[in-house]
Amino acid sequence: MLVRPKPGILDPQGQAVEASLRQLGFSVGDARIGRVVDLDVDATDAKQAREAVERMCQQLLANPLIESYEIALKADA
Amino acid sequence: MLVRPKPGILDPQGQAVEASLRQLGFSVGDARIGRVVDLDVDATDAKQAREAVERMCQQLLANPLIESYEIALKADA
Repeated sequence: MLVRPKPGILDPQGQAVEASLRQLGFSVGDARIGRVVDLDVDATDAKQAREAVERMCQQLLANPLIESYEIALKADA
Repeated sequence: MLVRPKPGILDPQGQAVEASLRQLGFSVGDARIGRVVDLDVDATDAKQAREAVERMCQQLLANPLIESYEIALKADA
């Protein structure tokens, strides 16, 4: 899943990266840094897997006050 | 773009997240943590934009020894 700072929330890491890229000569704007978390989930179907990952995001992986998350599932054996 | 630890590279952050999720009762495995970087790039076309982002990854955003990256472009006004 992808965890990103919500719009409007200050993102100092993104600002630092943007400043560094400009210093290197790149013409960029609005840099934001988030996390990507890849993991295997034991589940019987996609619905169950998505619900489990939703709970993981809410309980541990994202801070719902300042971060939004996006879940992508990939079926596997 | 997405920056992830390469397969085989130790990922202590992923291990910590996996241990915490298990402690919370989730049945998960192989957790890996990377970064997602969103930014606006000034470019005349998609090819030029992709080349610029490739250079950003190589120069600043990823450590090519231990990380792989994946670029996704989104056209904008």
